[in-house]
Amino acid sequence: MSSCICIPHAILLQPKTIWNSSKSNNGRRLGHCTEVPRNVNMENLQSGYLFPEIFKRESEHVRKYPDASLIRLGIGDTSEPIPDIITSAMAEHAFALSTVKGYKGYGEEQGNMALRKAIAEIFYKDMGLKGNEIFISDGAQCDISRLQMLLGSNMTVAVQDPSFPAYTDSSVIVGQAGKFQPETEKYKNIVYMNCTPENGFFPDLSTTSRTNIIFFCSPNNPTGHAASWQQLKQLVEFAKANGSIIIYDSAYAAYISNASPRSIYEIPGAREVAIEISSFSKFAGFTGVRLGWTVVPEELVYSNGYPVIKDFDRIVCTCFNGASNIAQAGGLACLSPDGYQALNSVVGYYKENAKIIVDTFESLGLKVYGGKNAPYAWVHFPGKSSWDTFAEILEKTHIVTIPGSGFGPGGEEYIRVSAFGQRECILEASRRLKNFYT
Amino acid sequence: MSSCICIPHAILLQPKTIWNSSKSNNGRRLGHCTEVPRNVNMENLQSGYLFPEIFKRESEHVRKYPDASLIRLGIGDTSEPIPDIITSAMAEHAFALSTVKGYKGYGEEQGNMALRKAIAEIFYKDMGLKGNEIFISDGAQCDISRLQMLLGSNMTVAVQDPSFPAYTDSSVIVGQAGKFQPETEKYKNIVYMNCTPENGFFPDLSTTSRTNIIFFCSPNNPTGHAASWQQLKQLVEFAKANGSIIIYDSAYAAYISNASPRSIYEIPGAREVAIEISSFSKFAGFTGVRLGWTVVPEELVYSNGYPVIKDFDRIVCTCFNGASNIAQAGGLACLSPDGYQALNSVVGYYKENAKIIVDTFESLGLKVYGGKNAPYAWVHFPGKSSWDTFAEILEKTHIVTIPGSGFGPGGEEYIRVSAFGQRECILEASRRLKNFYT
Repeated sequence: MSSCICIPHAILLQPKTIWNSSKSNNGRRLGHCTEVPRNVNMENLQSGYLFPEIFKRESEHVRKYPDASLIRLGIGDTSEPIPDIITSAMAEHAFALSTVKGYKGYGEEQGNMALRKAIAEIFYKDMGLKGNEIFISDGAQCDISRLQMLLGSNMTVAVQDPSFPAYTDSSVIVGQAGKFQPETEKYKNIVYMNCTPENGFFPDLSTTSRTNIIFFCSPNNPTGHAASWQQLKQLVEFAKANGSIIIYDSAYAAYISNASPRSIYEIPGAREVAIEISSFSKFAGFTGVRLGWTVVPEELVYSNGYPVIKDFDRIVCTCFNGASNIAQAGGLACLSPDGYQALNSVVGYYKENAKIIVDTFESLGLKVYGGKNAPYAWVHFPGKSSWDTFAEILEKTHIVTIPGSGFGPGGEEYIRVSAFGQRECILEASRRLKNFYT
Repeated sequence: MSSCICIPHAILLQPKTIWNSSKSNNGRRLGHCTEVPRNVNMENLQSGYLFPEIFKRESEHVRKYPDASLIRLGIGDTSEPIPDIITSAMAEHAFALSTVKGYKGYGEEQGNMALRKAIAEIFYKDMGLKGNEIFISDGAQCDISRLQMLLGSNMTVAVQDPSFPAYTDSSVIVGQAGKFQPETEKYKNIVYMNCTPENGFFPDLSTTSRTNIIFFCSPNNPTGHAASWQQLKQLVEFAKANGSIIIYDSAYAAYISNASPRSIYEIPGAREVAIEISSFSKFAGFTGVRLGWTVVPEELVYSNGYPVIKDFDRIVCTCFNGASNIAQAGGLACLSPDGYQALNSVVGYYKENAKIIVDTFESLGLKVYGGKNAPYAWVHFPGKSSWDTFAEILEKTHIVTIPGSGFGPGGEEYIRVSAFGQRECILEASRRLKNFYT
């Protein structure tokens, strides 16, 4: 096997948290027990959060094959250096914190207004959004939970099936989801909007039950489908007719190559029904730097007419204290003309990776979705459990993917393959897959 | 009035979010209303979060007196530059993100293990805590909310009165608090543990009702009281006897000058009853950089024997994605021998500020608490509403403080005065106060 230094094993072999099971949870615990009941919502969560679970499998594999060169196409983790115009801005901000003039303490909880305005200008031009409607976060995943705190337990929720697991899991944590039903692998109170090749990865809204909240991710993680303008128009009309709020996740918008909208606010009327969450993670390689944003339009109001933005502002002030000012300085540099252009090159690089991956699986006679408007390929292995496919690929090729069922029951028979990675790793992965499957 | 360039007015005059009240909430709204009910818990919150409210008052004052030189001793915002050994480490980390070798994507959600171990070693030496029990956060306030998500609505809660408002407000948001009762200015289901000069700012536990959760902050914000070893021993015994969990906030531990414990884990048995939250904000000037941590010992278990650490790990993985890796690099530098020493000088500087503030108010014949083991002086104005005192000081001296009642009904008649600020501002504040009150 050729050597591919895609992932230092030392990282994988770091000790993970080990539960002291001998001392607890076995009915014969010796120490003090509190009388605090465990949150029933936490009890209701099924297994671990998907991505740490994948990481655990990786680590076990590395222990089993210490000499193998692992290629990680699982967790969508960016691999390419951040353009130095951006890191220089962050370094400069950091250095300035050592000077009397440049030192800054607390910023506004909602984020630096210059950055909020730049986001409004760059991503929402001609959509009528203002800086004060943009809230800077430390990432879309974090704001999903803050939105769930905002909404509370008394909400009905719909999710695409398959979709990014944080929607469902956060819904369970705040108590919206009801019991997990093993026979369907669904939570009782969550409406699963099935997205398959048969319906063009867009749910049949004519048979979808009304919910308060509709989580919708486009380009979808994991299927890679970018909803068209017509589809999103349907979605907005559906929400309007039902009095629902869409929480639209556009974290992968930078990967759209076709005419699909990059924001829900391209659709007329969306300002009255939609919140949008987004992120610098996949667009700027900020997965570790941590920066994102959430848009809450002023027109979005609860049934009593109270503006959602006012409550979200309160949540941001009480439960958050703003993103790191260094990360925010980096965010501003991302949106400068030179920064933005440099980032487009990086996105282009990952898109070429995606094409290699799509071509590889197609050459093996498999049906592949995604990979054109998203950094993920969604590969169908008909009749085969997705965890089995995941395990087989890992065992035989030392490539980490993600089993589709981790994204919901609708992901069964699929695996998600990430296009984030150094080109040599992607090419090596392609060779290994072709060797194994042909 | 002498000129004191403590705070650039431009920052205060930034446009704040303005609610479009003409279009909503007046019963005659023209646009689309969703049919999503507003979260009753959000409805139950009283007024805005304290600190943005103070900021609003400041801004109004600046508009009224555009030429006045405002001195902000309100929000506890650090003012002194961060030692350059620390900012250099952050800048270096940022620069490295532009290199193939130095680029890092997602880190572990729980934080960089080197930093977790360094925190265990520096702050919890000889207390038997391990790196895996330390979870790196983006600040203590953020983790208060994550802990509330962990605990859920079905919890009874006690708070010190007065105390940092995030405990109470987050408790309201997750639905633990019950209705606000205007006659007592208390939430129905929260137990307020009164802390006054009469009881040495330590609650009378013999008359305190049993709750699942006890929020306890030492050194206390706002009173500045650092609980003694004997007091904390009482608290741990009380929690143990009641099967309660203490959430201990040690964000100001670096300011302790006497023999008071800097961590709850100095008390035998605390590992079985206490979570500790803490922060780099006030210790390292990281208020804008955003870095903190939470300790969840393995021995801490729910009534069914299930380890709390397991659920908190799940929350951190699902609702958070780790603190910024640049901030974490800074955190590691803070804990290097040179970094730590440099930070102690900064803390010493603020402590000298605190002494000036305490001496000033004492010279005016007022009773002053705090300021010795904490960066806050707690000043008693007998018989006078704390908002009136706040308003009078702001109007007459252009000094921003915080009205004690913002920290709970027990803070009435007091103001909190922050010692964070440049020395010239503190001295100027002292002069203005002496001029006005004598």
